[in-house]
Amino acid sequence: MSTLPTERTPTERTKIKRHPERAVYDRETVHAILDEAFLCHVAFSVDGQPHVLPTAYGRDGDWIYIHGSAASHMLRSLTTDVEVSVAVTLVDGFVLARSAFRHSLNYRSVVIFGKARFVSDPQEKHSALRTITNHLVPGRWEEVREPNEQEMRQTSVLALALGESVAKVRTGPPLDLADDISERVWGGVVPLRLEPSAPQADQHVKAETPVPDTARLKRSTRS
Amino acid sequence: MSTLPTERTPTERTKIKRHPERAVYDRETVHAILDEAFLCHVAFSVDGQPHVLPTAYGRDGDWIYIHGSAASHMLRSLTTDVEVSVAVTLVDGFVLARSAFRHSLNYRSVVIFGKARFVSDPQEKHSALRTITNHLVPGRWEEVREPNEQEMRQTSVLALALGESVAKVRTGPPLDLADDISERVWGGVVPLRLEPSAPQADQHVKAETPVPDTARLKRSTRS
Repeated sequence: MSTLPTERTPTERTKIKRHPERAVYDRETVHAILDEAFLCHVAFSVDGQPHVLPTAYGRDGDWIYIHGSAASHMLRSLTTDVEVSVAVTLVDGFVLARSAFRHSLNYRSVVIFGKARFVSDPQEKHSALRTITNHLVPGRWEEVREPNEQEMRQTSVLALALGESVAKVRTGPPLDLADDISERVWGGVVPLRLEPSAPQADQHVKAETPVPDTARLKRSTRS
Repeated sequence: MSTLPTERTPTERTKIKRHPERAVYDRETVHAILDEAFLCHVAFSVDGQPHVLPTAYGRDGDWIYIHGSAASHMLRSLTTDVEVSVAVTLVDGFVLARSAFRHSLNYRSVVIFGKARFVSDPQEKHSALRTITNHLVPGRWEEVREPNEQEMRQTSVLALALGESVAKVRTGPPLDLADDISERVWGGVVPLRLEPSAPQADQHVKAETPVPDTARLKRSTRS
């Protein structure tokens, strides 16, 4: 696997034209956002028609592995590498300004461009599924039954390199015009966070069975 | 504006092939998901290349209005109606099964296909911006300064009909194979919810100023 340089030059596709001050090209920022989120939106074309689907993913080095339904959908009509764009978005807050125009969201997002590669090698596919499962619920793969051959055949996985990727980040308070500041209107940020609540055991779990650490999901900021 | 029938026949694009039992075509379900979320991912093509961008939206009847950066991006290369696909996704929980294969997410999502229309009529644009602002923060438009002419010119809005749309919903516990059930492995759901926390006033707000109801965001389930 190739390694991304720490600082990268934007390509035509990853150069941010709107709010360029929010663009972040360094590898650590891209990785950190991808590691905190678990849901991506994959865009691809079928007969020139744009499609977008939400799906789970995991990161391994400078690759992400995309799971399941999106891959199946794409692979119905395409058997070779598929040109995709993938977005991962964490919303951190509503930004309430004194003018409608300057309202915003605080967020951290990544957009990736590239050709998604269908993962056919059994070893890479097995490793990718472990990566995705443990990305969503750290340590879970080691607690459960691994996929059998039939389940492996029923699962599609795509790999996408992070080579052409960019993060975009907005933080902080509203940026109001001086003329708009008044005592009449409150301004600030309403923080948002995706929070897990108490795990709900299903009907097969005996009352005395403790909830495992994996289900406690200490990483509460993930969305 | 046209009104969607309560029950609709799927089109080739909205017919769900993977987990068709999760597809929901009724208007009320589509509306409810769109009303609870506030972020969408818009996919479109530029020179045959798929692009996807996160952005805010609001719903007015059987239309959604899409704000800002996505519209600007698309409108750089396209001056007429733009073929798009839009996804809105609410993640409700991690589903922890006893086998890796049967792990899942509980979610409610909507995917919409259609030609996005550039909103040029000043009255519709004004109304659309009010819809988007109040969709994110109910009642906020009425508290703040409305956009002036220059701000209106700097803002792009797209309208997209919900005519070709479908919801997909997964709820409930893991669906494990009988052979996988054992006392050794816990199974169930870890619920997730996007929660607002205490509003953070910016440096212009005096200490004695009360936080307005709009910033309290009672609708805590929105993501």
